[in-house]
Amino acid sequence: MAEIHHLDSMADRYQHGIAVMQRLWGEPMTTELRTLWQQADPEIERYITAFAMGDIWARPTLDLKTRSLICLAAAVALERDGQIRLHTRGALQSGATATEVTETILQLMVYAGFPAAWQAMVVARQVIAEHTTSAAPSGD
Amino acid sequence: MAEIHHLDSMADRYQHGIAVMQRLWGEPMTTELRTLWQQADPEIERYITAFAMGDIWARPTLDLKTRSLICLAAAVALERDGQIRLHTRGALQSGATATEVTETILQLMVYAGFPAAWQAMVVARQVIAEHTTSAAPSGD
Amino acid sequence: MAEIHHLDSMADRYQHGIAVMQRLWGEPMTTELRTLWQQADPEIERYITAFAMGDIWARPTLDLKTRSLICLAAAVALERDGQIRLHTRGALQSGATATEVTETILQLMVYAGFPAAWQAMVVARQVIAEHTTSAAPSGD
Amino acid sequence: MAEIHHLDSMADRYQHGIAVMQRLWGEPMTTELRTLWQQADPEIERYITAFAMGDIWARPTLDLKTRSLICLAAAVALERDGQIRLHTRGALQSGATATEVTETILQLMVYAGFPAAWQAMVVARQVIAEHTTSAAPSGD
Amino acid sequence: MAEIHHLDSMADRYQHGIAVMQRLWGEPMTTELRTLWQQADPEIERYITAFAMGDIWARPTLDLKTRSLICLAAAVALERDGQIRLHTRGALQSGATATEVTETILQLMVYAGFPAAWQAMVVARQVIAEHTTSAAPSGD
Amino acid sequence: MAEIHHLDSMADRYQHGIAVMQRLWGEPMTTELRTLWQQADPEIERYITAFAMGDIWARPTLDLKTRSLICLAAAVALERDGQIRLHTRGALQSGATATEVTETILQLMVYAGFPAAWQAMVVARQVIAEHTTSAAPSGD
Repeated sequence: MAEIHHLDSMADRYQHGIAVMQRLWGEPMTTELRTLWQQADPEIERYITAFAMGDIWARPTLDLKTRSLICLAAAVALERDGQIRLHTRGALQSGATATEVTETILQLMVYAGFPAAWQAMVVARQVIAEHTTSAAPSGD
Repeated sequence: MAEIHHLDSMADRYQHGIAVMQRLWGEPMTTELRTLWQQADPEIERYITAFAMGDIWARPTLDLKTRSLICLAAAVALERDGQIRLHTRGALQSGATATEVTETILQLMVYAGFPAAWQAMVVARQVIAEHTTSAAPSGD
Repeated sequence: MAEIHHLDSMADRYQHGIAVMQRLWGEPMTTELRTLWQQADPEIERYITAFAMGDIWARPTLDLKTRSLICLAAAVALERDGQIRLHTRGALQSGATATEVTETILQLMVYAGFPAAWQAMVVARQVIAEHTTSAAPSGD
Repeated sequence: MAEIHHLDSMADRYQHGIAVMQRLWGEPMTTELRTLWQQADPEIERYITAFAMGDIWARPTLDLKTRSLICLAAAVALERDGQIRLHTRGALQSGATATEVTETILQLMVYAGFPAAWQAMVVARQVIAEHTTSAAPSGD
Repeated sequence: MAEIHHLDSMADRYQHGIAVMQRLWGEPMTTELRTLWQQADPEIERYITAFAMGDIWARPTLDLKTRSLICLAAAVALERDGQIRLHTRGALQSGATATEVTETILQLMVYAGFPAAWQAMVVARQVIAEHTTSAAPSGD
Repeated sequence: MAEIHHLDSMADRYQHGIAVMQRLWGEPMTTELRTLWQQADPEIERYITAFAMGDIWARPTLDLKTRSLICLAAAVALERDGQIRLHTRGALQSGATATEVTETILQLMVYAGFPAAWQAMVVARQVIAEHTTSAAPSGD
């Protein structure tokens, strides 16, 4: 476990969290999110960056694409539109195809109910369309 | 899309659902679940088998292991202990390591709250222990 | 609206609530519930009886059977086992058939997800079996 | 049970689902919903139409008005505004009075909390007002 | 208990509820809320005012500031933006500092998840900014 | 902000978290919880202790009693029995009276629904009875 948590100080965890975000979401989206979080509250931004990104997302075993699909599934189950948008972007950025995103949402019909899956699909489609104007939505 | 949904009749979708269950969960667990579902209600068992398993779980694009981790994530988010148990078993059966299961739950701390993740970990640990008495829980 | 709310005093609303419970659930179940509520907290028992039963359940327009199925639907959606038990009993007591109860739960598959409906069916079946040992579960 | 599920093929279930929608919501609303669902994802539209409408809503025992009130109750409990709108429209289309709709929501105060019921009432009132400009909102 | 519930009639409970609202939220916000509630449904307005405000909020033991923070916590946990807005205003009106409000939300990161806390912080910040243009957001 | 987060290293945050737990819950309950968390997963125990206890619960502005009532409110809203038990114990340990605990739950009737509040009251009463055999449950 030692090599996972060698980043002990807040400054290190925070910098590591930013690095994870850049790898996961790219530079522009990282800057956009950091600004939004800081505007809400500088302390919540620090906790999200250091703990959520620097401690948890940075862990090994699961790659960023799998983590994104897992977070997308949780967001659909909890019916959080902003999070569906975020993790769809993250999934596409980290190598998921549009079909893997929509497939994750179809899988959730069984568990979160049809209206939650349908609403998630509407939100994800917008992100997919923005991400790549050339991609056919349900076949890549 | 035609090749996905060539199984049109209820009888075919139902048989296909059973085949998916056997591939995903093995024979004893399939029989156990089918009996439980039938005892609850023969109609709900038919819908679960034909639609959830035969139509949705049977779809291509995502493999059974990834689907299991996605369903586990939704189960943690919705705090459904029975489902956490089921999809932990399914994940292990379809090739996930114990660490991939616990990693999925740790990822959910950020999204479902610490108590939901902790409770899910307790439940998943029991399944992991039953699954393999020889495996060390957090290192495989 | 005047005739609906002529019961103004706490004492009257409370007595009216007890009368509604007796009409809805019968005498033994009313006594059982009142005792449980009083043991939890005498004040919460008073609010439940006077407001939930005396003010709301006592209202016209919807009969007790329809109200019971509506409450059952909400209980399935919110995955509250105790409430599924209570409103299944209430529905059967106020004239619903076992099939109307199970049909309500099957309808909820689409909205609350398959695991919630399946779990609700298990709980409702126990109540139906206790209610009438002679009734065939899915055909009356 | 045989007569319920004689519609075995996807094509039959899908056509039957459309027929149920037309009976429940009328032609314009059916077209509107089908278009929305198809724009989100052609596959999710097929599952909703064939399974949710063709298999479940099409079942006997409960009439469309009762099913609409049940679905409305679940939508209030789960705080899904779009679904409150949909099932209020469906309830009014299938013979429920405006008072039966608002009565269902008042009943939910006890179970889903006052803010959820109040928010649902705001949404349902808009639909009721659109449905019939001549109807007095709380007396029919 | 007698002195708590000496307000027995609907008229008395209703008037008492209005008095609590004025003490808690001030006159303009009380009028604004009462109008919104009445427009939604005159009956739901009566129940909210007489029961929620006149019976429950009026109770002794916990002061209005503590009740506001408790309700804020529940609103964050249930991800109800309107309620977060309402109880942030109420908390500030009844003597809470901006920091006590944001501290309540930071505490909820652990229990409701980071996205729920972050979204609540965004909503609360708007209310705090409206409440006092001179207050520094995270230090008072 | 500097003085709040001078505890930068994992070891310091972890030790600080244990100190907060001892102050909040006392030594036996701290040991009991730490053992439970470690048995579930050594990593989740470290995150809970260092982040939830050492970073968040350790913050100034709100005292431990107020934080306990806030967490209790969230636990009632999310219908988490284990958390209701935990935060009732914590509230009593950090100076709340039994009446302040039950008052918090009564307040939640309005927001989380009557069944959630009633169920929470049953759970809290058991903890209150264990905490002090001499205290009258609803009057101190």
